[in-house]
Amino acid sequence: MQPHIQFKPEADELHLLDQRLLPLQEEWFVCKDVAEIIYALKEMVIRGAPAIGVTAAYGCCIAAATIDRNSPNWAAQLDARLTELGQARPTAVNLTWAVNLMRQTWKARPDLQLEELRLVWIAQAQELHSQDDQINRAMGRHGAKLLRDKDTVMTHCNAGALATGAFGTALGVIRAAVESGKQIHVLANETRPFLQGARLTAYELARDNIPVTVCCDNAVGLLMAKGMVQAVVVGADRVAANGDAANKIGTYTVAVLAKRHGVPFYVAVPFSTIDFATPTGAEIPIEQRPPLEVTHIQGQQITPTDVPVLNFAFDVTPADLITALITEKGVIAPEALRQHQPADG
Amino acid sequence: MQPHIQFKPEADELHLLDQRLLPLQEEWFVCKDVAEIIYALKEMVIRGAPAIGVTAAYGCCIAAATIDRNSPNWAAQLDARLTELGQARPTAVNLTWAVNLMRQTWKARPDLQLEELRLVWIAQAQELHSQDDQINRAMGRHGAKLLRDKDTVMTHCNAGALATGAFGTALGVIRAAVESGKQIHVLANETRPFLQGARLTAYELARDNIPVTVCCDNAVGLLMAKGMVQAVVVGADRVAANGDAANKIGTYTVAVLAKRHGVPFYVAVPFSTIDFATPTGAEIPIEQRPPLEVTHIQGQQITPTDVPVLNFAFDVTPADLITALITEKGVIAPEALRQHQPADG
Repeated sequence: MQPHIQFKPEADELHLLDQRLLPLQEEWFVCKDVAEIIYALKEMVIRGAPAIGVTAAYGCCIAAATIDRNSPNWAAQLDARLTELGQARPTAVNLTWAVNLMRQTWKARPDLQLEELRLVWIAQAQELHSQDDQINRAMGRHGAKLLRDKDTVMTHCNAGALATGAFGTALGVIRAAVESGKQIHVLANETRPFLQGARLTAYELARDNIPVTVCCDNAVGLLMAKGMVQAVVVGADRVAANGDAANKIGTYTVAVLAKRHGVPFYVAVPFSTIDFATPTGAEIPIEQRPPLEVTHIQGQQITPTDVPVLNFAFDVTPADLITALITEKGVIAPEALRQHQPADG
Repeated sequence: MQPHIQFKPEADELHLLDQRLLPLQEEWFVCKDVAEIIYALKEMVIRGAPAIGVTAAYGCCIAAATIDRNSPNWAAQLDARLTELGQARPTAVNLTWAVNLMRQTWKARPDLQLEELRLVWIAQAQELHSQDDQINRAMGRHGAKLLRDKDTVMTHCNAGALATGAFGTALGVIRAAVESGKQIHVLANETRPFLQGARLTAYELARDNIPVTVCCDNAVGLLMAKGMVQAVVVGADRVAANGDAANKIGTYTVAVLAKRHGVPFYVAVPFSTIDFATPTGAEIPIEQRPPLEVTHIQGQQITPTDVPVLNFAFDVTPADLITALITEKGVIAPEALRQHQPADG
C-alpha cells in the first residue's frame, strides 16, 4: 500500500488518504492549517492511535507554519494551537503523547525562533513517522511467533497500515506472520458504527493479498463456538498501567467470548500507546461520538427519525482477559507491564 | 400499530407490510401465489418466527386457491406446494409447525374437495392468527412481572408486533409491563446485518410511545459493564427440548455478556416455537443468507469488491445462559422444559 500519511514540507501540507471514503474511493484530504488537522481527526478522515500520533506531530509543524513569525506573541498563539490539537479526540493517548513530545523539544530549546522550531519539528515528526514503522515491524517480529501456520485470526476494527504510519500493529503482526511463510486467514469484524473492519481492514489486506473474510460483529460468538477462530489480535487506543486496554467499541465483547472459548486474545500496542499515568481502565475517558454514525450508514438513514441513539466509541478490556500484549520490546503479560515502565514514564 | 399481516379472503391475497423498507417507507407487498409467499419469506419482506408461522398458514390457503380445482391431480400439486412452502427458511420451526397443522387438517378430512379444504383452511389460518395474539398477550402477562418499574431492558433483533401476528413476544412482554403502569426504557441493539433492531424495533416502539434508544451491537459489553441494563428479553426462532434457543445472530453474545454481568436473560417464546423433536441446539440448522446483506447496507456497498463475507443468520444460546423462558403457559426454567412437553408433541 502507498503511504497514506504524506507530509509535504515544501508546501507545509499534510495529505491524508481519506478513510471515510474507502474502500470505494481513494481521495486525498489536504490539511493546510491546524483547524483542518483537527477536523480530519474528529471526523475520522484518519483514525487509529499510532496514526493519530503521527498526524498530530505533523500538525504541530503546520501550526508553526501558519503563525506569523514576526508576531510578538507567536509563542502564545502556538501554545494555544497545540492545546487545541491535543484535545481533538479524548481516548487515544498517542495524540497527547505526540503533542507532548513536540512541546518537550520546544521547552528544551527556548532560544529557537519560530522558523527554527518549525524545521526542528519537521525533522522530529519525520523521525517519529519512520520510528513508527520500525516499531510496528519489531512488534510484527515478536507477535508473528504467536500465530501458527494455517491459523484463522480474528481482528476487530482496523489496527493496520491505515491506523499507523505504515505497517500496522495488529495487522502488522499478521503481515509479519505471512512474510515469515505462514498461511493466515483473517476474519475481519465489520466494526459498526464506522465499519473500519468491513472497509479498511478488508481493503488493506486484500491489497496485500492476505486472505480476509468480513463478518458482522454479531457473528463473533457463533464463529468462536464453531471453533473457527484460533487467535484474536487487536490494537488499542490506550493501555493503562495495569494492562487494561481501551480499544474500539466491541473489543471487550470479543475478549469475553475469546476467554469463554479458550481462544488467545492478544493486544498489539507500541509503548507510545501505554499510558503509565493512567492506573486502570476505569480512568480512561470514553469518547461519545455523533449520533449520525449510528442513524445513517454511508448517508442512508436506517433508524426512524427522532429515535435517540447511543454512540460510545470505545470500551475497556480488563487485563485478565488479555493473554499478552505484543509490543516492540517483546511479548509482555499484562500483569508484568509495570516492570517495563520507562524511567521517565 | 395497524395489522401488518392482512389476508383478503375475497381476493385470495395476503398483504404484508414490507419490512425491508421500514422505517422510512410503509409499503405493502401483495402475495397472490405461493411463489410470492416464498419470496416474501426468503427475502424477509416478513420475518420473525411467529409471523412466519401465520404467513405460512395463509400461504396454504393461497396454495389451495391457485390450483385448478378440476385438475385430477390437484392433491399432488397441493402437496408439492406445501412442501416447497415449508422449506422456504430452515431455522424457524414455526414454518414447518404451521404447514404441518394445515396438513393434519387435510389428512383428517380426506373426503374434502379442494374448494371445501380451502374454506376450512382459511378459518383455521384466521384462528391461528387470532390465537397468536392471545398467546402473545398471555406471555406478556407472565413476563411483565419479571420487569421492574424504571428498568432498562435490552432486546436484540425484533421480536415485536412485526415478528408475530400482532402483539409481539419479547416486545409483547415489554408492552404488557408498560400497560401495567411500569416505566420501561428499551435499548434496541441495531442487529446487523438486517438491522431489525434499528429499523423495526425502534419503529414499532416509537409508534407506541415506549422510550427506545438504538445502540450498535458492539456496545452490548460496555452497556452491561456500565450497569445500564437491568434485564434482557429476546425472542427465539426455535427452542430445543433441552432449552437451547436459536435466535438472531448475536443473541448468544448478548447472553454470555449478561451472564458475566449478572443481568437476567429471558427468552419469550410461544410453545409453537419449542421443538421437542430437536433434542439440543446442536441439531438446529443455522441458515446462511446471501452475502449482499453484509456487503451492502440499504443498497450502498460497504466492503471492497471481491472480499468474501460470512452471513450466518442465527446462533444458539445454550440453556444454561437462559434465566427463564417466558411462554403462554407461564415462566419456565429451561431445564424444566421437558416437563411441559405436550402429550402429542
